[in-house]
Amino acid sequence: MQRWAEIRSGIGALDQGAMALARKRLDSLTKPQGSLGMLEDLAVQLAGITGNPLPRIQEKWVVVMAGDHGVVEEGVSAYPAEVTAQMVLNFLADGAGVNVFARHTETRVRVVDVGVATDLHLPGLWSRKVRRGTANLAQGPAMTPQEAEAALEVGIGVAADLADRGADLIATGDMGIGNTTPSAAILAAFTGRAPEEVVGRGTGVDDMRLAAKVEAVRRGLRVNRPDASDALDVLHKVGGLEIAGLAGVILGAALRRVPVVIDGFISGAAALVATRLVPAARPYIVPSHLSEEPGHRILLEELGLEAPLRLHMRLGEGTGAILAFSLVEAACKALAQMATFAEASVSEREA
Amino acid sequence: MQRWAEIRSGIGALDQGAMALARKRLDSLTKPQGSLGMLEDLAVQLAGITGNPLPRIQEKWVVVMAGDHGVVEEGVSAYPAEVTAQMVLNFLADGAGVNVFARHTETRVRVVDVGVATDLHLPGLWSRKVRRGTANLAQGPAMTPQEAEAALEVGIGVAADLADRGADLIATGDMGIGNTTPSAAILAAFTGRAPEEVVGRGTGVDDMRLAAKVEAVRRGLRVNRPDASDALDVLHKVGGLEIAGLAGVILGAALRRVPVVIDGFISGAAALVATRLVPAARPYIVPSHLSEEPGHRILLEELGLEAPLRLHMRLGEGTGAILAFSLVEAACKALAQMATFAEASVSEREA
Repeated sequence: MQRWAEIRSGIGALDQGAMALARKRLDSLTKPQGSLGMLEDLAVQLAGITGNPLPRIQEKWVVVMAGDHGVVEEGVSAYPAEVTAQMVLNFLADGAGVNVFARHTETRVRVVDVGVATDLHLPGLWSRKVRRGTANLAQGPAMTPQEAEAALEVGIGVAADLADRGADLIATGDMGIGNTTPSAAILAAFTGRAPEEVVGRGTGVDDMRLAAKVEAVRRGLRVNRPDASDALDVLHKVGGLEIAGLAGVILGAALRRVPVVIDGFISGAAALVATRLVPAARPYIVPSHLSEEPGHRILLEELGLEAPLRLHMRLGEGTGAILAFSLVEAACKALAQMATFAEASVSEREA
Repeated sequence: MQRWAEIRSGIGALDQGAMALARKRLDSLTKPQGSLGMLEDLAVQLAGITGNPLPRIQEKWVVVMAGDHGVVEEGVSAYPAEVTAQMVLNFLADGAGVNVFARHTETRVRVVDVGVATDLHLPGLWSRKVRRGTANLAQGPAMTPQEAEAALEVGIGVAADLADRGADLIATGDMGIGNTTPSAAILAAFTGRAPEEVVGRGTGVDDMRLAAKVEAVRRGLRVNRPDASDALDVLHKVGGLEIAGLAGVILGAALRRVPVVIDGFISGAAALVATRLVPAARPYIVPSHLSEEPGHRILLEELGLEAPLRLHMRLGEGTGAILAFSLVEAACKALAQMATFAEASVSEREA
């Protein structure tokens, strides 16, 4: 398909020259070589993404994609579905966790309705609704392939808009009651893991709802038979609208060479979709935290990512991703601002 | 001893009332209960430390204690001993990693010479030298009990001074070529672990120096026979001046009810000393990162602490501790600023 060829060819490799310069400078700074650990890798990654050997972070954004899920009728969540819309209002009123952490890190928040079940017309909300919630994935495809592609395009468009506004760091966040269920289904579909391995308690469901989630994922895979080698097939059959939107944000960020920090389990599922669609997007992704959701560890391993934050969080909204912004900024500042051994007249290590 | 009785009785328990209020408010905020994970525990801990159910962080400090180590003559470090003094200059010139991260987090830096081997008279340096470096712990006591107590008092005094200046968050940092060796010796002395388990590569030594470190710790324990039930005995025989100073900072912070964030392996050893001297100081300690030093995991387990940051760092100076400041602040802000379910008209979970 023409559009996918365009996206695939539009995502380039990291800039090896900028990375080599960044690595060389890091090795000249007044610290034992490599002693800043992951922060050094992060600084080099950002140099490669941006093509700037001294990358700077000045304009930070978090995208919160909201959507509803037909699978909630299987009893997979402890919260009623209307909470998705209520929380969208909370985001716009600046009262949610993501808002507090965004202020803390001087980050701007973009709230996008890509598939909330109710109609929302609210100042500040980006209304890009593809459909009013997904269908129940335990009974058939969550959406059509065309709807999945439309939601991906919403995300690509949001990332492009933020890049136009000068964003040099983007976080992915989600809101959607029930959305750990499609995320687990996506993970199971791509990896062949058993539902029991990838389904967790999400916001904190009891044993009964946990069993319902496992069963919903099992039936979703059996009924839909998603093709693991076809990411769009997996996405439309057992995914979600906000998950598709976030996969689009990741692809859109990669297209514009903007580093994209992924939040927890749902953003991770979106990253898995994005990298299966376009493997070249993988180096543009920065991990943030390891959540309490047991499948998240499997997901990050599958992505080949290691999370710097271990906070036992399970909130979503992009909260964990924004907390990692401070680390990304610290990495860039260490690279740019630390004195070299020569500048500080500090002796280097003995041979 | 009178002074120790004074310190022990001066460190009170956390304020259970403030903690209960903080916990109650956290459970009313628009998020699944407990979904902020460690950040919720952190907010409650700070409420208990400060006695304020809505703790605020406004004045942040990092203390970098510098000292030299006689044990370097055993060939335990890849860097020459003069780097301790050179790095003190680098701290004062604002060029080191700790300076960059301090600026990034709006933290002020207090550099203290508690035992650098050379004489330093520099603007901005707190000269509280107890002696010019320790003796070689592999051949006898690193210092006298009186010197260890004097270094502890330096730290207590520094914390008191910062508390007087309004500090409401203090990080501990270290500078001392060779200081992973006494830190490992302290850990081995308190826990009975074998030197091989607690000695690591520090700034990155080769196999030869690693073997020399293990042997230095083994001889230090054999020659000195530190008494694990007497923390001052352990500290003066196999410790270091900056380690004693940092243990003092931790006690001093607890005395003034200021939360103290500990950095990596050396600060952890200081925390072990502090909590063995005065167990009531333990709840005032906030962990930051898990370093690359293999003994650090054992150390944190011994302290009963879990590190939120996993960055594979091994730099010291307080760099990891300062990076955790952003998390502590985020925790307090979530507690104070998030909307409640009632305020935001969000439905609570179903029964």
